[in-house]
Amino acid sequence: MAKKPELDDFRVPFFEEGKKSAFKLSDFDAGAKPFSSGSKESDRELLLEFGTKLDAQQECLHAQRLQRVLLVLQGMDTSGKDGTIRAVFHEVDPLGLRIVPFKAPTLTEAAHDFLWRVHAQAPMAGELTIFNRSHYEDVLVPTVLGELSKTQRERRYRHIRDFEAMLADSGTTIIKCMLHISKDEQRERLQARIDDPSKHWKFDVSDLDARKLWDKYQDAYSDALAATSTDYAPWYVIPANSKTHRNVMVAALLARTMESLKLEFPPPKDSLKGVVVE
Amino acid sequence: MAKKPELDDFRVPFFEEGKKSAFKLSDFDAGAKPFSSGSKESDRELLLEFGTKLDAQQECLHAQRLQRVLLVLQGMDTSGKDGTIRAVFHEVDPLGLRIVPFKAPTLTEAAHDFLWRVHAQAPMAGELTIFNRSHYEDVLVPTVLGELSKTQRERRYRHIRDFEAMLADSGTTIIKCMLHISKDEQRERLQARIDDPSKHWKFDVSDLDARKLWDKYQDAYSDALAATSTDYAPWYVIPANSKTHRNVMVAALLARTMESLKLEFPPPKDSLKGVVVE
Repeated sequence: MAKKPELDDFRVPFFEEGKKSAFKLSDFDAGAKPFSSGSKESDRELLLEFGTKLDAQQECLHAQRLQRVLLVLQGMDTSGKDGTIRAVFHEVDPLGLRIVPFKAPTLTEAAHDFLWRVHAQAPMAGELTIFNRSHYEDVLVPTVLGELSKTQRERRYRHIRDFEAMLADSGTTIIKCMLHISKDEQRERLQARIDDPSKHWKFDVSDLDARKLWDKYQDAYSDALAATSTDYAPWYVIPANSKTHRNVMVAALLARTMESLKLEFPPPKDSLKGVVVE
Repeated sequence: MAKKPELDDFRVPFFEEGKKSAFKLSDFDAGAKPFSSGSKESDRELLLEFGTKLDAQQECLHAQRLQRVLLVLQGMDTSGKDGTIRAVFHEVDPLGLRIVPFKAPTLTEAAHDFLWRVHAQAPMAGELTIFNRSHYEDVLVPTVLGELSKTQRERRYRHIRDFEAMLADSGTTIIKCMLHISKDEQRERLQARIDDPSKHWKFDVSDLDARKLWDKYQDAYSDALAATSTDYAPWYVIPANSKTHRNVMVAALLARTMESLKLEFPPPKDSLKGVVVE
């Protein structure tokens, strides 16, 4: 009998200084559904359960105002970053979430170091923050476009590890998810958008340029994930051809992470004991 | 037969320069449920309908990226600002919302004019932004504490009208809701929090100080609402002793506002016609 899959089977091996990683994104099957409960319907029920749990955990996080949680979502176009946020957090109080989309840097942002705009958006105490794309774009894109030398790229990886270590040391729990779809799946999703004129606002012909660089992006991702998966900020590969599987797996990871924080409501206040409101 | 209530019956009369307003918050019954559909259950169903509609409207707003919408929520402690946001926006994609809580100003914020921190949070094109408390706090609190002369206060009202007019002229649709509860209702809600130790984190004994100034706050609100309700940024009084009524009424107002924007998806792009993804 096959071993039951575990979330940590999908964790990118931790970076080790001076050691070449064997990690390759292409070793993971984007079409797999290891954490699916069997059908789309039962996955949706499972997601609702996770959502309700996450909502309670987030309320506790907020009440405590001590810890911070950062979820980083990365993935190729159409990999489902937006859809994941919508589905996984449907039950969570919007007051307790902060979703930060990172687009192409503005002139002012580009005039600073690449972590400047990211640091400004780091979660506050009690906050659950989601990065919809992130500082990783500032390594991936210039790498694929050939704008970074190997030395420059490795320096950026180091800057990222150091930055994330500092956030973690300061009470931020970081979890990073790579939504992994296949090239075929992307073709279908892009074509579906093109064939539906009401979806045209979602993209431009030039968006297809990134697809032409698919293999380079997959390599750049493999390299970046291997260089920045650490015990304080691990990367997970999320097989994401199936949307329901993707949602369930991200929710399961996040629920496990929240659980590990041992969140508890603050103790009652003696100063309020027996107070009668007039 | 009594006239069917209309949303605009609850609109604060528009400010007229040099004319004393007759508006008083106390003329509105906080316990009324004019827009309730009859029972809590049917109100919840109605809210789900509004929510689904709002979600579609918000997607269109986002797709268009032309207009901006700002919802300002004000009200005394326990009036239900947080609860309103949670309930009214449950069906709306969290990616399309930005919720901005305004707390006591930081040292840096207080070192600027009172609109400085507010302007920085104004909605972008395509955004639906919710102010959870707002620039109005910076008139209400100092008014009640006797820190503003009548002249200073009226100058702030003018600054607010001018600021909101500028936002409106720049494509922002503004709607402002005063969640109106009675003093008795607040007592019950505060007492319930005190009696439940797991809710103690939500407040401090000093929170009861504002309640002692209840009448002064009601007067300050009446004055501020009358001075800043305009055709480009109207105030509505939301009877809010009933939570389901409050939610339904805010949702109805917002849905009507979104409808008035005549939102449409952007036209299909000729450049994508017949494109086949490889």
